[in-house]
Amino acid sequence: MANQSQIIFTNEVVPALEELLRKLASSDVFVLTDSNTVEKVWPLLRDNSPVLQNAHVITIPGGEINKDIRTVETVWQALVDNGASRNAVLVNVGGGLVSDLGGFAAATFKRGIHCINIPTTLLSAVDASVGGKTGVNFAGAKNLIGTFSQPYAVIVSGIFFNTLPYREILSGYGEMLKHAMLSNLADTVQLLSLTPEAILGNPVELLEILQKNIAIKEKVVEKDPHEKNLRKALNLGHTIGHAFEALSFNINYSDLPHGFAVAHGLVAESVLSAMLEGFDHTLLHNLARYVRENYGIFPLQCSQYKHLVDYMRQDKKNADAQHINFTLLGAPGQILIDREIPVPEIYKALDIYRDLMGQ
Amino acid sequence: MANQSQIIFTNEVVPALEELLRKLASSDVFVLTDSNTVEKVWPLLRDNSPVLQNAHVITIPGGEINKDIRTVETVWQALVDNGASRNAVLVNVGGGLVSDLGGFAAATFKRGIHCINIPTTLLSAVDASVGGKTGVNFAGAKNLIGTFSQPYAVIVSGIFFNTLPYREILSGYGEMLKHAMLSNLADTVQLLSLTPEAILGNPVELLEILQKNIAIKEKVVEKDPHEKNLRKALNLGHTIGHAFEALSFNINYSDLPHGFAVAHGLVAESVLSAMLEGFDHTLLHNLARYVRENYGIFPLQCSQYKHLVDYMRQDKKNADAQHINFTLLGAPGQILIDREIPVPEIYKALDIYRDLMGQ
Repeated sequence: MANQSQIIFTNEVVPALEELLRKLASSDVFVLTDSNTVEKVWPLLRDNSPVLQNAHVITIPGGEINKDIRTVETVWQALVDNGASRNAVLVNVGGGLVSDLGGFAAATFKRGIHCINIPTTLLSAVDASVGGKTGVNFAGAKNLIGTFSQPYAVIVSGIFFNTLPYREILSGYGEMLKHAMLSNLADTVQLLSLTPEAILGNPVELLEILQKNIAIKEKVVEKDPHEKNLRKALNLGHTIGHAFEALSFNINYSDLPHGFAVAHGLVAESVLSAMLEGFDHTLLHNLARYVRENYGIFPLQCSQYKHLVDYMRQDKKNADAQHINFTLLGAPGQILIDREIPVPEIYKALDIYRDLMGQ
Repeated sequence: MANQSQIIFTNEVVPALEELLRKLASSDVFVLTDSNTVEKVWPLLRDNSPVLQNAHVITIPGGEINKDIRTVETVWQALVDNGASRNAVLVNVGGGLVSDLGGFAAATFKRGIHCINIPTTLLSAVDASVGGKTGVNFAGAKNLIGTFSQPYAVIVSGIFFNTLPYREILSGYGEMLKHAMLSNLADTVQLLSLTPEAILGNPVELLEILQKNIAIKEKVVEKDPHEKNLRKALNLGHTIGHAFEALSFNINYSDLPHGFAVAHGLVAESVLSAMLEGFDHTLLHNLARYVRENYGIFPLQCSQYKHLVDYMRQDKKNADAQHINFTLLGAPGQILIDREIPVPEIYKALDIYRDLMGQ
């Protein structure tokens, strides 16, 4: 458990990890992976490191459905069974499931052991693994149970992503778009002029873009780790995005990847920003076109607006269920938090969003 | 979730609590009690406060056996079912079970809601409710799962203790002895010259003694909330004390209250301090006599030493299982942490301890 974590950008993951473990001087190294990562990624690390060959590997089943307190208990039990002391280190190798759940297990075992995140998906590299939010789902609500606990370090690299399906890459790119929009116009325009495919082909350029992109999140988290005010900025695109995700899962029974939901949420919330806060209309149109071309259309009917608003009301970030708070933008980088929007305005924005997406 | 909590010493509990709730401006007040407290103590508070009459009351079953993650889940579920927001406040009314478990539930619900502790036992007033350690038992180990999370406030009063069995009072007094020994000679001599019975009869004097006594813990916790160094001071009497507790529970099948174990642990560890660190022999004899007269004899045989040492090895506070670390004293107030003691010295100290206790 650290107060502020270091983020290391490198494509030389094994030496970076070994260096961190030397600094922590722990003889008690545990690796958490899931059923996907343990086959595809873990051997790449283990086979190149005598230190990691001696680590205890804990493997949890993949999939959002296993992100619960039962799975956390299996991690705690594995730590107990292998005599983990307070000086133990948990290395989370995987996507958001592994770092969120592993971070929570580490934060609560013996009141906190160190953990190191090695994100293996683009989405977790730019989002879950950085910023110290840990959590598991409970009673049907995403990440309802968790802590704010910084990992000791995060190692971000571009070497794992080419093993991923393209949908996963697009999903991570959705969060990158959000960061760019929180940052400034130039970064936003840069990402809208690239495709994820193009940057994946160049690991060195990818690492540079990631470094710039993650810096905005780091800066926000450093100033407000417990989301009392500024950190709400990171909620951009997520109020409507989470509602799209919930609608998709509960009503349409189809699986909308998180970053897809965020990309669509960014469009819908930029409509609100354009309606109410002077956000540039041309940029809104460019964003909508980019999302439509790369992420496709999210099927939405007027009759579903009510469900969406109900989901928005349940957002953890609302002070209570009566008010729906948004993070909006006057322009890229010009962040407006705690904007309370009346339901008729939200309905109007959803109409315009559907228009822009060609529905 | 606060960084440092305020401790309020008052026998006017209801106005103090109402004032805190006003400051927090939360409309979302939950009260956690257990099956004992909900009958004996909760009505004293509720019947005097319109604010508390509107609170949601969550009652968990009493007893150490229920201090587990299952019970935490029932608390989370009750919070969900009653629409608890991030601004909700959980008021823990009870002994150490309620504040440890409630503190953990609050620290992990929506990544942390505020809690206020109202300890209703002397032991929790001087120990569990102050200092921000939360936790539940797991895999047979005490408080293995938990966090360091300060309550927003603690209200310490002397008005609840006369409902308690005398054994409970003695148990709390064991922790008070520890604090006095960590503080200075005068406080130590004062407590050894009183009986718990005598101070209970005088709620005003009791509050004064509590304030002085808890101050030492507050001071230590403030300097080292995460037990990296100085906080280990609070482990005085607990390395051997916890082993006595475990031996009693697992081998003798009898229930040794925590504070009794600490009182005996203080004697045994003061023997080590006298053997190795120059702790005054007369004071050691006075302490041993006081514990013998008030807490009775803890039955211990030479053949059980090995078990005791095995329990000591499992202490969370050891960096690893090979070394047994003690907090010792050169004199009251002269604290020596991380003293690594070889097993033969521990055996010798246990021999002398049994001698002193007249076994």
